[in-house]
Amino acid sequence: MNKVAVVAYGGIKFSRDNIPIESLLLSATKNLFDQNSKLDQKDVDVVLVSTNDNSKYLSAILAELSGIEPKIAHTVESLCNSGTNAAVSAFSYISAGLAEVALVVGADRFDSPGQILQWDNSRGEYKHPIYWASIFTKAYKRKFETTNEELTYVAAKNHRNAKNNPFAFSNKSFSFDELMNSKILTNDLRMSDCSRPCSGGSAILLASENMARKFTDKPVWISGIGQKTMSAGFTKNKNISNMISTQKAAKIAFDMSHLKPDNVDFAEIHDAFTVCEFMALEDLGLVQRGKSAQYVKNLFETNNMKINPRGGLIGSGHPLGATGIAQIIEVVQQLQGTAGKRQINNPSVGLVHNMSAAATSSTVLLLKS
Amino acid sequence: MNKVAVVAYGGIKFSRDNIPIESLLLSATKNLFDQNSKLDQKDVDVVLVSTNDNSKYLSAILAELSGIEPKIAHTVESLCNSGTNAAVSAFSYISAGLAEVALVVGADRFDSPGQILQWDNSRGEYKHPIYWASIFTKAYKRKFETTNEELTYVAAKNHRNAKNNPFAFSNKSFSFDELMNSKILTNDLRMSDCSRPCSGGSAILLASENMARKFTDKPVWISGIGQKTMSAGFTKNKNISNMISTQKAAKIAFDMSHLKPDNVDFAEIHDAFTVCEFMALEDLGLVQRGKSAQYVKNLFETNNMKINPRGGLIGSGHPLGATGIAQIIEVVQQLQGTAGKRQINNPSVGLVHNMSAAATSSTVLLLKS
Repeated sequence: MNKVAVVAYGGIKFSRDNIPIESLLLSATKNLFDQNSKLDQKDVDVVLVSTNDNSKYLSAILAELSGIEPKIAHTVESLCNSGTNAAVSAFSYISAGLAEVALVVGADRFDSPGQILQWDNSRGEYKHPIYWASIFTKAYKRKFETTNEELTYVAAKNHRNAKNNPFAFSNKSFSFDELMNSKILTNDLRMSDCSRPCSGGSAILLASENMARKFTDKPVWISGIGQKTMSAGFTKNKNISNMISTQKAAKIAFDMSHLKPDNVDFAEIHDAFTVCEFMALEDLGLVQRGKSAQYVKNLFETNNMKINPRGGLIGSGHPLGATGIAQIIEVVQQLQGTAGKRQINNPSVGLVHNMSAAATSSTVLLLKS
Repeated sequence: MNKVAVVAYGGIKFSRDNIPIESLLLSATKNLFDQNSKLDQKDVDVVLVSTNDNSKYLSAILAELSGIEPKIAHTVESLCNSGTNAAVSAFSYISAGLAEVALVVGADRFDSPGQILQWDNSRGEYKHPIYWASIFTKAYKRKFETTNEELTYVAAKNHRNAKNNPFAFSNKSFSFDELMNSKILTNDLRMSDCSRPCSGGSAILLASENMARKFTDKPVWISGIGQKTMSAGFTKNKNISNMISTQKAAKIAFDMSHLKPDNVDFAEIHDAFTVCEFMALEDLGLVQRGKSAQYVKNLFETNNMKINPRGGLIGSGHPLGATGIAQIIEVVQQLQGTAGKRQINNPSVGLVHNMSAAATSSTVLLLKS
């Protein structure tokens, strides 16, 4: 398989602002070009947009606005993991030899239609993600005797990490008590357990081995790719205290890369809700089953940023189509040693976990410097 | 580059029926499975949906409805050439080695939101495709002194071919005079010059060289792929009597396949409007500039089906996300010798031309038996 690297990135600060989808896409792209003087529009063979927005032909619109005339251009949608799906698609175009350089830009608005699971009749009236998250949370808490306080360490850690992420929706400080006492939404979820929809855009540039060093002397290689879709409807889940699609995607990614969970120095985890971070840590093989509460509390108390260094979805916000791309950017910055106050000590392998719709589908990526 | 073949297909009759998008996708998929007893759901690594529908997560929904648990699943959108974009994406996943077998299903409803170019502010009030088609038609007619009668041969030929296509929206016979005297829509377009939106679904199965012969003893290889996006807005077009994106896509596809226009035995052309068939024939290098009117008239008079044997978009209807897939199916049937009354004599190379939004982007595929 021909190697493919992430060689550049760009982003904007996530917000609740009422920004047109085209502007979100263009601003992230402009930031990428502004940071990469060696990149010319003529270099770009592929423009992929990842979004849940209803607008059509956004990849051609972004290409025109950016002065690019790509060979391949289209939108990729798979709800909350649209971003990593688009990145893997770009990887494939390059690895197959149809392209040398691909721009992948994810964006969504705070009012993205991907937030409500309109399509899932099995959910009855309960089409908002907080309902599946409540069921997940209740199941996990029951199985492992987990407390609200333990779940709150996820939020506390991720908000703390987000304070050093210039692209994060909120850089605000929250005390542990503030989070514990945040608004109750369901029997099992408070506001602090939830990631928040917002407007945001994130862009990455992928390149073939042949072209990568034109743009950077520190290419970050995509060495493991795992994806799995189990179903669309939540009620097909056979087990609701873990995420089977994540387990299966992780196995595929680790097999492809010849790496093991022990080799992972840090990870971007899809903490759509606090319980998702616990479940994912275990399904990825990073933490023993049922031990995540202790593990995360320890990370918080020792100021260790290795899980969700940019603040995760809870700290950074969740503009659906941008999230997977923003996760990849964080891994690239960490592996290039440019993560500033968020920098982890000398990492060599980073993991991205991006999922959709109650983990009915998951992507796991392993990136290496 | 690892070889990839089309090994199976399925479809449904296009109609104006009010069918849910999920049912269109599932019916085409079911028809594919029904025709291929060697295909098991477990074989399928990738499920891609091509559509302009606003529904989200359709690939996961189709996978669940079909009993497939794929690795890779997402929607691809690029207006009218969504279908070939999805097919090329599936090609890449397989050729790169991330998958062995990919199901690609395109569908749209008669009321698809992709029919109105909401996003193109440069079009002012003229967001319906008939406005760009009128400008194209006027420009072509002026440059080559083409008459309404000559354009009508496109419609007459394609409606005649469609009569033998069981999936076509209309199998009705039209006299030449009926078409000539159809309702006038703009100064340069009558109803008979236009393809019609409809509800439809089309499915293909792609496989690696390793897996192809499990499903068929006549795999059809995708040997040339060319894609080009020039812009999103029609007003960026520098030349309105031909289609630059089609020229550029054709060059890439012919270069990749080491074939020449003379090697093409038959072609599926994106005749969204009659003039598009003339322009595409010339931009693809199949006919000399300005000679298409005579060429098409001759095809009609000699009952030659080599251009748009299934009836094109004008004869078969145009369910946007399905069209590119339906075009590929026709080429596969012709190359496998199973096109029935539409069968061309012993072809070995077929071409697909699929475009979007006033040919601001085009895909050209070359397929070989």
